[in-house]
Amino acid sequence: MNGAESLVATLVREGVDICFANPGTSEMHFLAALDNPKMRSVLCLFEGVATGAADGWYRMRDKPASTLLHLGPGLANGLANIHNARRASSGMVNIIGEHSSAHLTYDPPLKSDIEGLARPLSHWVRRVDSSQSIAWDTASAVGQASGHPGRIATLILPGDASWQDAGDAVIPPSSARKSPSVPDYGRIEAVAQILKSDESAMIILGNKATRGPALVAAGRIAAATGCRLATQFFSSRIERGAGRTPLERIPYAVEQATRFLSGIRHIITVETTEPIAFFSYPDKPSLLKAEDTVVHSLIHADEDSTIGLEMLADALGAGDAAPVIQRPTETAAPAGALTPLSIAQALSAAIPENGIIVDESLTTGRETMSHTMGAKPHDLINNMGGSIGYGTPVATGAALACPDRRVICIVGDGSAMYTIQSLWTQAREGLNVTTVIFANNQYAILKAEYSNMGAGTPGAQAMAMIDIDRPTIDWLAMARSMGVPAVRVEDAGALHAELLRCNTTPGPSLIEVRLY
Amino acid sequence: MNGAESLVATLVREGVDICFANPGTSEMHFLAALDNPKMRSVLCLFEGVATGAADGWYRMRDKPASTLLHLGPGLANGLANIHNARRASSGMVNIIGEHSSAHLTYDPPLKSDIEGLARPLSHWVRRVDSSQSIAWDTASAVGQASGHPGRIATLILPGDASWQDAGDAVIPPSSARKSPSVPDYGRIEAVAQILKSDESAMIILGNKATRGPALVAAGRIAAATGCRLATQFFSSRIERGAGRTPLERIPYAVEQATRFLSGIRHIITVETTEPIAFFSYPDKPSLLKAEDTVVHSLIHADEDSTIGLEMLADALGAGDAAPVIQRPTETAAPAGALTPLSIAQALSAAIPENGIIVDESLTTGRETMSHTMGAKPHDLINNMGGSIGYGTPVATGAALACPDRRVICIVGDGSAMYTIQSLWTQAREGLNVTTVIFANNQYAILKAEYSNMGAGTPGAQAMAMIDIDRPTIDWLAMARSMGVPAVRVEDAGALHAELLRCNTTPGPSLIEVRLY
Repeated sequence: MNGAESLVATLVREGVDICFANPGTSEMHFLAALDNPKMRSVLCLFEGVATGAADGWYRMRDKPASTLLHLGPGLANGLANIHNARRASSGMVNIIGEHSSAHLTYDPPLKSDIEGLARPLSHWVRRVDSSQSIAWDTASAVGQASGHPGRIATLILPGDASWQDAGDAVIPPSSARKSPSVPDYGRIEAVAQILKSDESAMIILGNKATRGPALVAAGRIAAATGCRLATQFFSSRIERGAGRTPLERIPYAVEQATRFLSGIRHIITVETTEPIAFFSYPDKPSLLKAEDTVVHSLIHADEDSTIGLEMLADALGAGDAAPVIQRPTETAAPAGALTPLSIAQALSAAIPENGIIVDESLTTGRETMSHTMGAKPHDLINNMGGSIGYGTPVATGAALACPDRRVICIVGDGSAMYTIQSLWTQAREGLNVTTVIFANNQYAILKAEYSNMGAGTPGAQAMAMIDIDRPTIDWLAMARSMGVPAVRVEDAGALHAELLRCNTTPGPSLIEVRLY
Repeated sequence: MNGAESLVATLVREGVDICFANPGTSEMHFLAALDNPKMRSVLCLFEGVATGAADGWYRMRDKPASTLLHLGPGLANGLANIHNARRASSGMVNIIGEHSSAHLTYDPPLKSDIEGLARPLSHWVRRVDSSQSIAWDTASAVGQASGHPGRIATLILPGDASWQDAGDAVIPPSSARKSPSVPDYGRIEAVAQILKSDESAMIILGNKATRGPALVAAGRIAAATGCRLATQFFSSRIERGAGRTPLERIPYAVEQATRFLSGIRHIITVETTEPIAFFSYPDKPSLLKAEDTVVHSLIHADEDSTIGLEMLADALGAGDAAPVIQRPTETAAPAGALTPLSIAQALSAAIPENGIIVDESLTTGRETMSHTMGAKPHDLINNMGGSIGYGTPVATGAALACPDRRVICIVGDGSAMYTIQSLWTQAREGLNVTTVIFANNQYAILKAEYSNMGAGTPGAQAMAMIDIDRPTIDWLAMARSMGVPAVRVEDAGALHAELLRCNTTPGPSLIEVRLY
């Protein structure tokens, strides 16, 4: 067994059984090793698709995928979606091919400082020293990525370590993996006192607290105390829809967010921080809470929110209370012109049971998702890092993670262009992804932000950097070029009908929602 | 005048008059400042297009362009082509938008270690401290980028520095810019002695020595001494074709390269290093020269090769000699099946006077470019850093730099997919670029490398990571989706005819060369 085979065997043994790959010459032995029948290999035509897909996989499976990237530049191409995954607390094991150690001496063209490129966005970086230590290094990487919260582990694999004999695999004990900590009971008790008082309180849930038993416990606490439950504007994954405990969403715009948070005496955070503005603006605050609001960190990022919220529910005597739940919304089949409301209604009426929504609709979808609160139960995934081009790759990974569920990726036209190569992988793998492109021919969010920034009235050149017409992107041709069938809709009825049709059509589809 | 306006005014004053931009919220004031009539702004829908275009601009203009990128992840998306530009010794000024300093305290979602991301691939990184120092910082960045060899300068621009008042601009004296050094005469004399001896010698020319008066001087030296003139397999820009001094090309494959270099007693390097293998392979050497070859560094990377080679020609008494020149090749109009030879002949016969060839044809074009030696005089540009996806962006920048010249970008299908968003910018700007896609539906180079690596016979999973069929990319649809007219050719006659047609058709075109 050579080093590459040992690496793949160790990944599989440690539970990492998918690799999103964009290989190059230095990774040929790794490629050969991918023929391990327990490893699924998925080819991506651009590295940002690979790392984003690994993020999507983690969001749905709560365990890391691996990526295979080609030297420093291959890693660089994947970094933006590694940033997004990191901010989403997604674990990921990146394998970065590298020249053999002896060859690096000669400064070959593809040489770069891979550790330097990896460190700013990785929690853990290691260069494999020898094929003999590769199993240990790989198991360590998986251990790092698999903790709570998930972490970015980057393993640099020199060619010689890949092709030399690995000897017997030695791996660290799996007990080295870190489990989530149990929250301190003093904090639980203090928050219980606050929730028993008549002062207003809002619990803001983040990361893994927005789903499963943690969400149910939060629903019990709200039922028992009347406190409000909310999330940041962006969440890594929320279980929502009819029958689930509903969470309010803190608005994106600074003015709306401060208004939303005004009058709240206590903000209680669970696996997240107090709300802050996404960007900085002249003369607008970074902190969004009111001046007299007190923030309490109930459950820290590395703690177990299910245990913590259940402890809190028990402390409140609400352990058996019926949780607050969302009623189903009965929407008449939408029709007429495409507006934010009619789009939301079409979406809401078409979300299938157990659907997965990946949202990168910066303007069109932003203010409308609240209208989908009463849709059939589904998961909602947001971009946590703010780097554009996360949507279609994350949808790709989520669809691979959950082959029996329909993924609906709603994405602006500007955003979709960053990592549009995702469509090809969706077509190759026959993934059940419906990509909905909001085609408004502009970076509409930037038009709003231009004015938010107080940058005056855009001149012709500035405006040309915000409009993405000239030429208009032909989304039907784009989809077809990569083997994805596509349709264009110009009214809400057609959008609704096409969404329903895609729900029951296996494989990927694209719907262009023409807004211009 | 605010900081952003001061920045743009300084760029323009220092000779940087184009900006390849992919802006975000934090760059709104910069965007407003781009309305400066002396600055041309070009929107790119992905950052790798912006940085690659800046590289192409430098290759043709020998002066830096600027890029505008959105925080750490925007920079990350541009890094692979920054790596390529760095390896090509192209100068570039990257402006990276950043949160205002006060906002960074709160660790907002888009925060990352921008310096950390920039440093591995930049020669110079600075964070603007205040709007008052922005002119100084900008002029320093341009000075750094404009030296010889060109350098990567990265300037981080916090929002508050952008929007606050800049006061009076203070800039460093332009004498601070570093000019190329004059080579040491002792080295010149020593090499002259070698060339006067009867020992075999090859001069390997790199960077700016492959064009203009440096190339003419090299041609004189070869004519007077019989020495061979060569380049590395990849060169940043070569002036070649009929009437120019021809340069041999060191082959890519290790076996061929060592054979090519065997029997050469003296390798003399000019603005480059001794030849090394691009990748490391088990049981193949990294150094390509024969054991008894002596390497002489005649002109270092930071020296002036025109002066140096003219000094050498004078020392050899060859200052007025007629240089070795390439005769024109008369090729019959090619016809018949598409083969590497017929493709080369079609290209050779169709290269227009003063055309610019950007070559990213990893397999199809690799061994055939020698057949274009006798074409009409043209420039040839290669990928110096080896990161895939350089071709279409560099072609975009070259076409903007030289609006009166036809750019022909020859690129494999796999490579083209990394940064295909270039087509949109080419359409928007009406650039005279003919993109020729060699569509073989595979990463063909990797099939060859798999065997070169001794990785055995690829299994089904490994092979699936090398083939990019399933689905077949429809290049006509891809081009049309971004507003570029396209045709498909299936024989050499049609390729030749379509290349000629594109030469005289203003604006971009795409030709799919169907090889499957």
